[in-house]
Amino acid sequence: MVSDSQRRLIILTEGHTEPVTGKTATCVVRYRPEQVVALLDSTQAGKTAQELLNVGGDIPIVGSLEDAPQANVLMLGIAPSGGKIPAPWRSIILAAIRRGMDVISGLHEFLCSDAEFVSAAAEKGVQLIDVRKNNERDVANRIDIREDCLRVHTVGQDCSVGKMLVSLELSNAMKARGIQSKFIATGQTGILVEGDGCPIDCVVADFLSGAVEKMILAHQHNDVLFIEGQGSISHPRYSAVTLGLLHGCLPQAMILCYEVGRKHVYGMEGFPLKPLDQLLRVYETMANLAVPSRVIGVAMNSRKVSAEETEKERERVRQELGLPVCDVIRHGPDELLEPIQAMLGEK
Amino acid sequence: MVSDSQRRLIILTEGHTEPVTGKTATCVVRYRPEQVVALLDSTQAGKTAQELLNVGGDIPIVGSLEDAPQANVLMLGIAPSGGKIPAPWRSIILAAIRRGMDVISGLHEFLCSDAEFVSAAAEKGVQLIDVRKNNERDVANRIDIREDCLRVHTVGQDCSVGKMLVSLELSNAMKARGIQSKFIATGQTGILVEGDGCPIDCVVADFLSGAVEKMILAHQHNDVLFIEGQGSISHPRYSAVTLGLLHGCLPQAMILCYEVGRKHVYGMEGFPLKPLDQLLRVYETMANLAVPSRVIGVAMNSRKVSAEETEKERERVRQELGLPVCDVIRHGPDELLEPIQAMLGEK
Repeated sequence: MVSDSQRRLIILTEGHTEPVTGKTATCVVRYRPEQVVALLDSTQAGKTAQELLNVGGDIPIVGSLEDAPQANVLMLGIAPSGGKIPAPWRSIILAAIRRGMDVISGLHEFLCSDAEFVSAAAEKGVQLIDVRKNNERDVANRIDIREDCLRVHTVGQDCSVGKMLVSLELSNAMKARGIQSKFIATGQTGILVEGDGCPIDCVVADFLSGAVEKMILAHQHNDVLFIEGQGSISHPRYSAVTLGLLHGCLPQAMILCYEVGRKHVYGMEGFPLKPLDQLLRVYETMANLAVPSRVIGVAMNSRKVSAEETEKERERVRQELGLPVCDVIRHGPDELLEPIQAMLGEK
Repeated sequence: MVSDSQRRLIILTEGHTEPVTGKTATCVVRYRPEQVVALLDSTQAGKTAQELLNVGGDIPIVGSLEDAPQANVLMLGIAPSGGKIPAPWRSIILAAIRRGMDVISGLHEFLCSDAEFVSAAAEKGVQLIDVRKNNERDVANRIDIREDCLRVHTVGQDCSVGKMLVSLELSNAMKARGIQSKFIATGQTGILVEGDGCPIDCVVADFLSGAVEKMILAHQHNDVLFIEGQGSISHPRYSAVTLGLLHGCLPQAMILCYEVGRKHVYGMEGFPLKPLDQLLRVYETMANLAVPSRVIGVAMNSRKVSAEETEKERERVRQELGLPVCDVIRHGPDELLEPIQAMLGEK
């Protein structure tokens, strides 16, 4: 197996080299650019990551594995709903294995459950790494949770609004202020970036909160934990994941994340999103069944709107909810760090 | 494999022949008594099911497999938190296999993942049946849900308060009134009783609501579905299961189930139960994120209290919540059927 420090990744985003469906690729490019040799998308060959993902500078988009001969690992760079391997990707995965490359996937459909991939990998002596594969079998107990560790949880209006990115940016910013902080990754992309975590959407439901609790117990020697949220409490498909995570990580503070301009559930056009004020109340109600908790700020994702529209929206939401609001990329995270620092000061 | 109609069960309840931990045994004895030869509990040998479970008449408790030679299937009759096979049971399971018996288990720890059991079963040509084993991999879509099928969902203050039993009794009572009704089993005990269903607490979290939705779609030609609830929306361990089920089955009507006198989460003494009125509001809030829905009645489990205490409590809860209240075993289900019939009349 290629060790983390030796990884030279080519990230497969065929037909999906954009920031939402290709969020795994985008986040690895953003946070681990030193590992990324190229992105593989024959429909976009010749362009750069910066042009398509707004991040990654000159990292090239190439049309075939042959165009990035220095790569030693193929990473699947999309996270589609349902987590199946797109059929046209099979031949690319097989070609990578036959070139002697490891393959990393964060999909629900495991590489190592596929007889053809397993057989080819065995022949070439390469590794198939399924980030979502787990065998979590412990229930939550809510015992020995430390009061002196502040748990901050990003919760969302929808999937794919930036909960992982906000958690990571806030954690990094706290570290820069000299505070012991840890990003708790709960999804495949976060795990690929952070190097540890648990893919909670792939845990057997009875053990979901228990899997989260184990991560809290393992890292609560830090001053603050930023626990990556998943889905939305009102999501037609994934609300179970969202609530099990909320009740497993027991946040004293929550940050509500949304994307400016999004009107419907991502990938489900028939389902309007719930208003932010309603969701804020629901998250607080559900969190307080477990622990005293409140929403302390709003993280807006203003990727698709102008600077002017962003400022108007920011002020509108500040007024409506009476909370700090910012886009951690556009504005930096300081406005959201203030209430967190204040809570740390009270401990 | 022994077919359903040929099953002569001995149910293993060693050390747990009582209605709560032994609820799988108790419910199979209650609803499928024709299949049950004996219960196996060496600590209670010589007694009857009626004495220990308040159901099952003369079905004997025996001390060893040899005492029930006509049995051809061993069923594990408990559902402990975490779902592990108790260590002292291993030798009993192996002995049953060696006698040529099939073994049925509803635990999370699968018989067919245990090399010793698998090898012994292969040698004797018997079947190991893991009721919880599943490979659900479809997300929910909320498409083609019929408005003319009434979905009634039992929700609870806690685990093990009688949600399965209430769902089954109400469904049977509706059938007796000539209405096309179906009990939708969502746990191992319900599946063993009904013969179909999905063990949703053992589904990978992303697919939990999808697994429930599939059952709804398959049975919505009925006038009414009674969907067995799981856990509680405020349960420290299992709230993910509860919410995924709620958002998968989209109930227009809910029945709130609780056990009179229970003060703490079952098996977690440090955690007081939430008050019924608070839970009623939370269930309605969460259900209404998906579909217009209300709690239409309360099912009390008065197993542990006197007739006099039961009537006092029944009146108290009627007054407090302004809803029909009854114990479907003690009082019969009629009071809860009235609002359901009224809703059917409106369709």
